[in-house]
Amino acid sequence: MRGAILYAPGDIRVDERDDPRIEKPTDAIIRLSATCVCGSDLWPYRGIEAVNGPAPMGHEYAGIVEEAGSDVRTVKPGQFVIGSFFASDNTCEICRAGYQSSCIHREPIGALGAQAEYLRVPLADGTLVATPEVPSADLVPSLLAASDVLGTGWFAAVAAEVRPGKTVAVVGDGAVGLLAVLAAKQLGAARIIAMCRHEPRQKLALEFGATDIVTERGGGGVARIKDLTNGFGAHSVIEAVGTQESMMQALRSTRPGGHMGYVGVAHGVALPGEELFFSHAHLHGGPAPVRRFLPELIDLICNRQIDPGKVFDLELPLDQAAEGYHAMDERRAIKTLLHP
Amino acid sequence: MRGAILYAPGDIRVDERDDPRIEKPTDAIIRLSATCVCGSDLWPYRGIEAVNGPAPMGHEYAGIVEEAGSDVRTVKPGQFVIGSFFASDNTCEICRAGYQSSCIHREPIGALGAQAEYLRVPLADGTLVATPEVPSADLVPSLLAASDVLGTGWFAAVAAEVRPGKTVAVVGDGAVGLLAVLAAKQLGAARIIAMCRHEPRQKLALEFGATDIVTERGGGGVARIKDLTNGFGAHSVIEAVGTQESMMQALRSTRPGGHMGYVGVAHGVALPGEELFFSHAHLHGGPAPVRRFLPELIDLICNRQIDPGKVFDLELPLDQAAEGYHAMDERRAIKTLLHP
Repeated sequence: MRGAILYAPGDIRVDERDDPRIEKPTDAIIRLSATCVCGSDLWPYRGIEAVNGPAPMGHEYAGIVEEAGSDVRTVKPGQFVIGSFFASDNTCEICRAGYQSSCIHREPIGALGAQAEYLRVPLADGTLVATPEVPSADLVPSLLAASDVLGTGWFAAVAAEVRPGKTVAVVGDGAVGLLAVLAAKQLGAARIIAMCRHEPRQKLALEFGATDIVTERGGGGVARIKDLTNGFGAHSVIEAVGTQESMMQALRSTRPGGHMGYVGVAHGVALPGEELFFSHAHLHGGPAPVRRFLPELIDLICNRQIDPGKVFDLELPLDQAAEGYHAMDERRAIKTLLHP
Repeated sequence: MRGAILYAPGDIRVDERDDPRIEKPTDAIIRLSATCVCGSDLWPYRGIEAVNGPAPMGHEYAGIVEEAGSDVRTVKPGQFVIGSFFASDNTCEICRAGYQSSCIHREPIGALGAQAEYLRVPLADGTLVATPEVPSADLVPSLLAASDVLGTGWFAAVAAEVRPGKTVAVVGDGAVGLLAVLAAKQLGAARIIAMCRHEPRQKLALEFGATDIVTERGGGGVARIKDLTNGFGAHSVIEAVGTQESMMQALRSTRPGGHMGYVGVAHGVALPGEELFFSHAHLHGGPAPVRRFLPELIDLICNRQIDPGKVFDLELPLDQAAEGYHAMDERRAIKTLLHP
């Protein structure tokens, strides 16, 4: 089959890879209907994360079950399924508490490479959720978004304790930040401030439910959030970048007693203890347990109540994955969908 | 009047100070029934926090209202009152959300020096809570404890989301850590693991409700907590020290999805973002909004349901404050009560 492989920073190619096969009776093989490039794929692409030899890429997937291992009970060939970027048993104590991305048996899908024609999904019963029926093609981008960026934005909003009537600020205008705006809207926030300076992203943020746009960053951005909230800061602040600057911008935008939800994969971040202490903020975040939210998100999408697939502003054949990465790296595209 | 003054690290003396007077119509003057030395007083005493010239010391207090300013409505001369280490209006939006120690009008009591015969309390209506009647002398230590260490330990347990049936670990065996054990017990924890190596403190921890004692620290302590919790870590972890080591010990003892409540005043702490991210912990803490809990704590004490005053294992006349500091610095005493 064909699949994307990162050879070195900036060097992504679609090459022939071995077809995946059932390795354990709990595996399933899916034929991908669509896959995509994640903001977090850009860390190794940019050389900020080490690349150790040729690495298959991609961890977002939706598609048709091709084959199910002998122990798989909940999905079967022909069904359309979505999973998350960590395979999980969904039965251990950590999964049952809603933290499937810390499952004691978790396996990273990224290592298997979902930017490909086929994917082996471990722990299929715990990982995959089937749609009620095979969806029409126009729903596929939104269902693919549920695999990571929607689920991650949703977790960020839940981690930031977004509640009806509250004021929410979102740091980060990538696909996750934009879908956190959508999640905050769904969760009933009264005011949603998107911190965003790129016009097409501002437009999408407003479409997803943002009520205010703040273009300033750093201290200037924090000052604007304070201005908009009687000097207190927002009740809920979502961080969807992962840098020291964005984490501090989020922390300082949170009112005392407020909640900060962080889902940007942290790179080189160190939180100063004294400032954290006196901030009186609640902090929660990490790799989103997308599996927790999948049934609800699939319902919302299949009922056409939300349209998160709008974050895909570039669609390419899988063979042009390199251009998909390049466009996102240069911020010409918010998110690239790849057709296998 | 007589009051304790810190002249330089290690140099604490009880000298003559000006009697406090009503300065604003919202002030009250109280005659202290008892005051005490706090673990946080040891930071400047040890020279870890700067001492800028002679500084009146002390921020924990309980006593009789001597005089009330003309705007004071809720307390009156002759009443026995307890307040917290931050004066607060208890009416602003932050106070109403339960974060009185971040009140927009807060004033630190420490700057006024509560280790003295009399104390001016700003914002008396928002700050002070009166007992139903003047308590008998044997209740005074417990009521004094409510002013900070009990309220702080209680907040730590609430911040760590202690719930009935949960497993709690407590890092720190000072008065706050020990009273966090008491709070966890009151809040219904099934299992309370006190991390504590000093025998008299272990004894008090067990008396307050600890079910397990762990004497190891650092990585060894974390490994013991994991051993005791099926490898997961505790649901709720309380941090009551404020150093890098204790914060990391607490973070690493928290299970994915669990809650860490930190109340040790952070000194030189930097939380590594990557580890925080993948820990999946909830974090909350800071200067305890003791005022939020005072009515409930006073009830529990006056009804003799809890006896937090047991943390005072040394009682001295105010004039011997120096020995009180010295004994705590050398860990010969858990906490020193001073009789003005």
